[in-house]
Amino acid sequence: MAILQPIIDLAAICYGHGIRHVVISPGSRSAALTLAFARHGGFKTHVCIDERSAGFIAMGMAQQIRVPVVLICTSGSAAYNFAPAVSEAFFQQIPLLILTADRPKEWLHQYDGQTIYQNDIYGKHVKKAFELSPDYGHKDVQWSISRTVNEAINVAAALPYGPVHINIPIREPFYPQASETWKQSANLRIIKRQEPDRILSPDQWMDILNEWDDSKKILIAIGQHGPDERLSRVLAQISDEWGIPIVGDCISNLNGNQFIGNHDLFLSFPEVTELQPDLLITAGLSFISKDLKNFLRKNTPKQHWHIGLDNILADPTQSVSRFLPISPTYFFESLFEKIDYQLFTQNVDPENDEAFGLTWSAKNTVSGRLKHEYLENLTSLNDLTGIDLSIKSLKSSYQLHVANSMSIRYLNMLGMPEHVSGIFSNRGTSGIDGCVSTAIGAAMVNGQPTVLIVGDVAFLYDRNGFLNKSLPENLKIIVLNNAGGNIFRMIDGPTGLPEMEEFFETRHSFSARRTCEDSAISYFKASDLEELESVLLQFWTGQSISLLEIFTDPYENEKVWRELRRQAREQSF
Amino acid sequence: MAILQPIIDLAAICYGHGIRHVVISPGSRSAALTLAFARHGGFKTHVCIDERSAGFIAMGMAQQIRVPVVLICTSGSAAYNFAPAVSEAFFQQIPLLILTADRPKEWLHQYDGQTIYQNDIYGKHVKKAFELSPDYGHKDVQWSISRTVNEAINVAAALPYGPVHINIPIREPFYPQASETWKQSANLRIIKRQEPDRILSPDQWMDILNEWDDSKKILIAIGQHGPDERLSRVLAQISDEWGIPIVGDCISNLNGNQFIGNHDLFLSFPEVTELQPDLLITAGLSFISKDLKNFLRKNTPKQHWHIGLDNILADPTQSVSRFLPISPTYFFESLFEKIDYQLFTQNVDPENDEAFGLTWSAKNTVSGRLKHEYLENLTSLNDLTGIDLSIKSLKSSYQLHVANSMSIRYLNMLGMPEHVSGIFSNRGTSGIDGCVSTAIGAAMVNGQPTVLIVGDVAFLYDRNGFLNKSLPENLKIIVLNNAGGNIFRMIDGPTGLPEMEEFFETRHSFSARRTCEDSAISYFKASDLEELESVLLQFWTGQSISLLEIFTDPYENEKVWRELRRQAREQSF
Repeated sequence: MAILQPIIDLAAICYGHGIRHVVISPGSRSAALTLAFARHGGFKTHVCIDERSAGFIAMGMAQQIRVPVVLICTSGSAAYNFAPAVSEAFFQQIPLLILTADRPKEWLHQYDGQTIYQNDIYGKHVKKAFELSPDYGHKDVQWSISRTVNEAINVAAALPYGPVHINIPIREPFYPQASETWKQSANLRIIKRQEPDRILSPDQWMDILNEWDDSKKILIAIGQHGPDERLSRVLAQISDEWGIPIVGDCISNLNGNQFIGNHDLFLSFPEVTELQPDLLITAGLSFISKDLKNFLRKNTPKQHWHIGLDNILADPTQSVSRFLPISPTYFFESLFEKIDYQLFTQNVDPENDEAFGLTWSAKNTVSGRLKHEYLENLTSLNDLTGIDLSIKSLKSSYQLHVANSMSIRYLNMLGMPEHVSGIFSNRGTSGIDGCVSTAIGAAMVNGQPTVLIVGDVAFLYDRNGFLNKSLPENLKIIVLNNAGGNIFRMIDGPTGLPEMEEFFETRHSFSARRTCEDSAISYFKASDLEELESVLLQFWTGQSISLLEIFTDPYENEKVWRELRRQAREQSF
Repeated sequence: MAILQPIIDLAAICYGHGIRHVVISPGSRSAALTLAFARHGGFKTHVCIDERSAGFIAMGMAQQIRVPVVLICTSGSAAYNFAPAVSEAFFQQIPLLILTADRPKEWLHQYDGQTIYQNDIYGKHVKKAFELSPDYGHKDVQWSISRTVNEAINVAAALPYGPVHINIPIREPFYPQASETWKQSANLRIIKRQEPDRILSPDQWMDILNEWDDSKKILIAIGQHGPDERLSRVLAQISDEWGIPIVGDCISNLNGNQFIGNHDLFLSFPEVTELQPDLLITAGLSFISKDLKNFLRKNTPKQHWHIGLDNILADPTQSVSRFLPISPTYFFESLFEKIDYQLFTQNVDPENDEAFGLTWSAKNTVSGRLKHEYLENLTSLNDLTGIDLSIKSLKSSYQLHVANSMSIRYLNMLGMPEHVSGIFSNRGTSGIDGCVSTAIGAAMVNGQPTVLIVGDVAFLYDRNGFLNKSLPENLKIIVLNNAGGNIFRMIDGPTGLPEMEEFFETRHSFSARRTCEDSAISYFKASDLEELESVLLQFWTGQSISLLEIFTDPYENEKVWRELRRQAREQSF
């Protein structure tokens, strides 16, 4: 048996569990891990030299395929460079299996190279952390490694998904002899965990339906949620048939014109108490809209049900009264079916207050019209018109990734674009650190045209995502280059501070052009609306990975953003 | 009193402790911290958008000035991006004060943006971690913040130096009102810790001197140590007057031709048992030379004293018999004085075996001659000749930074260059992740010509170090571009693996040119020896930050490296 047999088997167990993608950062200590996955034959391997990017690329893949993606690095600070992606994956509930090679414990803090305290290095940002024993010769260790790897994959792939870490101390020699046989053990065990259905009992449903019946003003609000046709469909039915308002940010991926998406334009103003629900039902993860969050915190409902396969009691609106750790799709489909049946068989009049839904709907429509007219009348190229024009010129289905900071706020203001199959954004930790790499990872596996919208700072921060050999041809990147962190001009706090430009906005004159040249990315640019219009067709139809840099003025962006909100406010009075 | 008064005072306490440099990554949650340091007036502030680079820039500064440098970031994954630099600072014993803004605990894991588990986020890689209370209105909290900040600085600045973390939850509002007074409290307390001298008692000295007297073959080996004239001087005396061999890697910064520096060429061969010491004395941190480490592990001395202001029992050669947690300079100066006095007054013949020292010295000389001749006869431009020619063309004092992976191995092979005032390398964790930023930080504060030697992979990995607005004009960078991770060709394991090029070396065709153009760095290049010679003068004499890219062939580099070692081996037989 090869000394490294348990490592060879580790890869085979991953394969047995359906894992197919592996992101590898090169290293010597991790050589056996690399070879185990490379030589297996069943994996698609991706090599990235910068572990920070590697982490986000793996996360972007797993975000799409919803099966754990394996991440491999060598020992030392390499493991720490995965940490930003690990924390994002944890809060965004994305399955990752992180395999960090390590020196055997004996050498910890003994002045040896690439040796840090790797055990539990990701703290509470993994669902579980394991450490293997390096004594591969012992039969109990062989059993334990096999069992641990099975458990780690099961934990990562159990709902809610999340990252799991296995720290793997490996003794020398790291590399196999040429003569060494290299194949998996005959008695490999794949221990599959059966994910049980989580359903409510008839008694629990009765209780819920009674509370529903007692509520006149029901509001449904959906936080971040991947695209889900069944969920969108049943929510559309609930809205259409019972007039219940359903509000969602763009990252809720609610597809349909009955949904409320212009709340950023009408929820921050004094008179909104008429929109206060009796019963609030929430599902999904975070809200982007600070106004929505503040509105819900201020206008506390009598009852608040939160639906989600979560292990924590999340209560961001400070109002949850009932926590249902079940799938939102199961919940809303069952609810719809049960109430529909009740209405039909018992001929019960719904208690639902129609005016409540109509008020929400009217506000949404009026705000939408205002926004539409406002955009129509803008004649400058700025971040808002730049994004609007770009995505409106897309006429067939695509997936959209949006970076943190201003980009996602713009998108949420503009609402769910036409033809989009899904919107993704790293709203787990809301960092700018891996927005580019995440989109690269997603585009590598999603098999569809993919667009990333990103500001200049987030772009520069994560430019090492482009250091990889093969970049996905289906990725188009739009960089909003406003020469700094424009968000600091949009929020009220820093306005007028003398330290604004140097310490917050960090004004710069970088462009994305040379980064594109370095990585053979087709480069386009636009500095005014005409130029943008003329360049878009070429940009969208190119067959290679392309980047469009839209140069805008930070002051103009600020003016446009504030004026839209001012007009919305004026209209609401 | 301003709501944020304790934050204003925090900056003032830092100033009172002699802290002068602050590296800031922009953010809203951290606005008060930023403003407190920016408005104080006594600090030199440096703004970096990428926290990973910011961390290493701060570390590079603190490495030079040996006073804590403050690092500021906003909440969320920003804090995790400091982690690679924090772990390097911990193992390299460099003082940092890391201030991470945070949301108040109430919002942890509540779907809020930029909120992760920040408390204890750096695990065992900080000397101590603190967390402040956000209830600034309470008198006990005000006292506690002041006391904690004093303690944190004291801990970072106590020997051995290291990073200390304060996590700082801050409630809204983050930004001061324009009308708000902004000045430090009148009753500010600066609590200075008195660092005691650590000396040995006469009894302890007698014990040590007896053991010394009983030893015939004494070897002194110095690990990583900053430049220290007094230490170099006394060690030179010990070598000169008593013929005791003193071996050190280039990062030991031993300045003098009596020191043994060619051990990489003569320690890996069978017959070296004649070099085995009775008594080994070590000081400093890690060794670069794997041969030296292996030699000492195999040829265990009877006695081994390790001298160092360390809190751990480091025993990398598996032979320590006496651990002296005192300063190496104090130890060797006292030792020299005491033995000198003993020799003089008691007219004792030294027991020291002269032949032992002469053997070490002869091996060193012969190896040095072989290396010299070997280099003289090389006619190609490769990594080794490229570095050799470049540094030999420097005729006045400069500081040298060397990246991890092959660069530092080349430098250790070449030995301490002339005119160098100090050699630095991130050998705490030996990662490639921050080598560029560390040199940038060092050059910002060291007031002398500074040279960085770095391979292409380490350069690309850390290119975000160049995103900063002001780069130090005194920095010259030499990039050895061998189109991939050449180290994997130099070590024996991966040679001949079919996966070599794709999974280990990661061959690429990037050049540093466009990165230079982006950041207004003067760019030079050389592809053969003639071109290198002609470009060097211009490169060294330029007044701005400059980069010289030396293009070499990975196969030629491998051949040159292996042939030198082969010749050394042949000669030793």
